[in-house]
Amino acid sequence: MKELPKILDQRWVEPRFKLRQLDLEFSNGATRTFECIPSKGTGAVVIVPLADADTVLLSIEYAAGLHRYELGLPRGRIDAGESPEEAANRELKEEIGFGAGKLTTLRSVSLAPAFMAHQTHVVVAEELFEERLPGDEPEPIDVRPWPLDELHDLLLREEFSEGRAIAALFMAREWLRRGRRWE
Amino acid sequence: MKELPKILDQRWVEPRFKLRQLDLEFSNGATRTFECIPSKGTGAVVIVPLADADTVLLSIEYAAGLHRYELGLPRGRIDAGESPEEAANRELKEEIGFGAGKLTTLRSVSLAPAFMAHQTHVVVAEELFEERLPGDEPEPIDVRPWPLDELHDLLLREEFSEGRAIAALFMAREWLRRGRRWE
Repeated sequence: MKELPKILDQRWVEPRFKLRQLDLEFSNGATRTFECIPSKGTGAVVIVPLADADTVLLSIEYAAGLHRYELGLPRGRIDAGESPEEAANRELKEEIGFGAGKLTTLRSVSLAPAFMAHQTHVVVAEELFEERLPGDEPEPIDVRPWPLDELHDLLLREEFSEGRAIAALFMAREWLRRGRRWE
Repeated sequence: MKELPKILDQRWVEPRFKLRQLDLEFSNGATRTFECIPSKGTGAVVIVPLADADTVLLSIEYAAGLHRYELGLPRGRIDAGESPEEAANRELKEEIGFGAGKLTTLRSVSLAPAFMAHQTHVVVAEELFEERLPGDEPEPIDVRPWPLDELHDLLLREEFSEGRAIAALFMAREWLRRGRRWE
């Protein structure tokens, strides 16, 4: 893994969002106050880029929450007016320098539904071709091809940790094994 | 699914946490400011309760972030001084009225490592016996047995949406298929 970025300075700032506090009455008469974080924008995509039917392209990207390089899948926010597939194709070009001839959304997954409305669409990208769009990444994102047959070895890597990415890879493998059928 | 709780009142409140803002210099000299949400406490557990080697017990619980009942897995915070397995056993008793004779932590998964340090331990619970501890749930949590062989049908249910829960179920199925071996 790469040398970690240096922390030049740090500070604590007020969040630019408020929490939604809900006073609830359940059907049995019990009352509780719950809190949740509002959802911003139109959700996100996580992309499973397939170099071929046996090989996924993983990304190696700095993750500030854990202050380490994380092995994972390309992902990003859906911009206003974009479909999940369009967002996936743009993020692929910005992050790892590939476009996709074929994009398939399997389903969306939630992050923490007890607290957040946030949704992430799982998109499989196939028929890849080289094309790079300028992004806002501070450095090129390294790409690591990984055999789908060796998914279990990936689960043993501490730095491949994101729940959504693990779910997306298993779902893509399931989809491939079912002859690219989801329903 | 049950009748949704009524929203008696709602308001917007300031979060009781601050964001950490990091000024970073990457190894190529590029500088960026990243933000992350601090991690509270000692993490969380998500539990895969196995009634037998083919059957998982799903929970049906109100999810405020999506304002709907969500099909998922029992989970909760690890209290101070608890191991992940102790937290899993307590949450099982509080949430669905079962204790477990055997608890196995497969690994931890992160929620959104670009923004959060939050870690969730995936714990498989076996040798279940009836035992209920009082919890803070507003109503009894319904339990739905689900055959692990029918995991794909579960993925077609919109209300089974949490990335961590999907990842945990696939991981538990993998662990069982490998003869209860993880490494």
